[in-house]
Amino acid sequence: MFSTMAQRLQELMVLFFLAIFSKAVAGLKPYTRANLMPDAANNNYCLSWRLAVEANNVRGWRTVPAQCLRYIEAYMIGGQYDRDLEFITQQIWSYVSGIVPSSDGWMPGFLTLMTLASPMSFTIRERDMGTCDPYDPAGFKAWALMGGCPAIPAVLRLFLDLVEGGFKVFLVTGRDQESLGQATADNLHNQGFIGYERLILRTASYKGQSAVKYKSDIRKQLVEEGYRIWGNVGDQWSDLQGEFLGNRTFKLPNPMYFVP
Amino acid sequence: MFSTMAQRLQELMVLFFLAIFSKAVAGLKPYTRANLMPDAANNNYCLSWRLAVEANNVRGWRTVPAQCLRYIEAYMIGGQYDRDLEFITQQIWSYVSGIVPSSDGWMPGFLTLMTLASPMSFTIRERDMGTCDPYDPAGFKAWALMGGCPAIPAVLRLFLDLVEGGFKVFLVTGRDQESLGQATADNLHNQGFIGYERLILRTASYKGQSAVKYKSDIRKQLVEEGYRIWGNVGDQWSDLQGEFLGNRTFKLPNPMYFVP
Repeated sequence: MFSTMAQRLQELMVLFFLAIFSKAVAGLKPYTRANLMPDAANNNYCLSWRLAVEANNVRGWRTVPAQCLRYIEAYMIGGQYDRDLEFITQQIWSYVSGIVPSSDGWMPGFLTLMTLASPMSFTIRERDMGTCDPYDPAGFKAWALMGGCPAIPAVLRLFLDLVEGGFKVFLVTGRDQESLGQATADNLHNQGFIGYERLILRTASYKGQSAVKYKSDIRKQLVEEGYRIWGNVGDQWSDLQGEFLGNRTFKLPNPMYFVP
Repeated sequence: MFSTMAQRLQELMVLFFLAIFSKAVAGLKPYTRANLMPDAANNNYCLSWRLAVEANNVRGWRTVPAQCLRYIEAYMIGGQYDRDLEFITQQIWSYVSGIVPSSDGWMPGFLTLMTLASPMSFTIRERDMGTCDPYDPAGFKAWALMGGCPAIPAVLRLFLDLVEGGFKVFLVTGRDQESLGQATADNLHNQGFIGYERLILRTASYKGQSAVKYKSDIRKQLVEEGYRIWGNVGDQWSDLQGEFLGNRTFKLPNPMYFVP
């Protein structure tokens, strides 16, 4: 029931998001549900584009290419996006399951349910928990304020498994702390993200800094506090580049927007 | 004519390569041309796997998953691999075309045909120029010794464009200099890779080092010689990680083998 509703919401979000884009593209037919059928002639090109985005070969793109709007919509709500997420969260869990406890003096106070002697942290960006937080548009800020972003089921499951597995999970987001802090915390709670160690939003001192710099600084602080970052998960390459990246990084798919 | 022959050779290589793998997989039907039709039921999973490989989410894999052998074969010779390569080499060329000449004292002797005042280098791994150099198998070493690896047309075109554009192109490969140096140079020449600045193979002093360490050292040396590395192209993430990576990295697709 919850899962069906979440999926409906997700579909609506994709449509809403792509509708905004299509408005910006001159000469394109109105973006209605009726003409959303994937155009087979474009599929090969758009598959190349999507691959290039995920491999970080295409950077700084501001919108989905006009000819790929329908393809990306079909990808997002047609099942393959969910399968890609499922595949990657399984990879993450397989990696996590192979972590061997050690006792090398890292924050010995953080013994976990997995009886690891060293503390662990696992950063997941808050952005990855819903599909309704694209880069910048004011309309989405208003939406975020409502605290109604639906969770991505596969990411929620991974999160809960990590918490249950004894990982200290840090949620690091570029959202503004002052204006969106409370709404974000509420949203996480109403979606079931319960048990994380800390939610870290962008404070005034980081305003205007690039995502790579801001997030590197946050990770540095965590390491200096004594955390070992076992994994670093994000849907943007700017989450996974810079310094103090952690032992492994994982890129979740996101062909909808690019955060520099 | 040349291009058709090269394509035939490439197809044969894919078959040969996948055949070796299929032998290693117990219970699999003999890998013959007759049963190479992609299995539709596997396609979605294998597409997720291929995406995860290119995004560096799956690491250290030794073989293509058994259920994806047919899918990968179809990908490699059915057109999408060529389209992906074409897409990325266009991205590279678009990036290269945007490079603005500067005169900041980097090796002023290296004025180029593009009248850039600073020297430029563009590393391309030799491995990316053919599909016949998988990781380690002795049979392929013998093949490499024959100097018959066919060029990938899109990469050859990019190479020639870069040379003509005035870039100093360095070819950096993990191949052993002593045993494969001459054959590799001959192979490059007979495939039309003419005009590169330097071909760099693995000397005895780098034996046993990881690809990331060895290639970082090589790039460091180039930078110390005064080269600015504008671009770094490879089909393995181990080409694109480590130090002195250059201003931009580009990952060429390769779902056939993984070099740690």
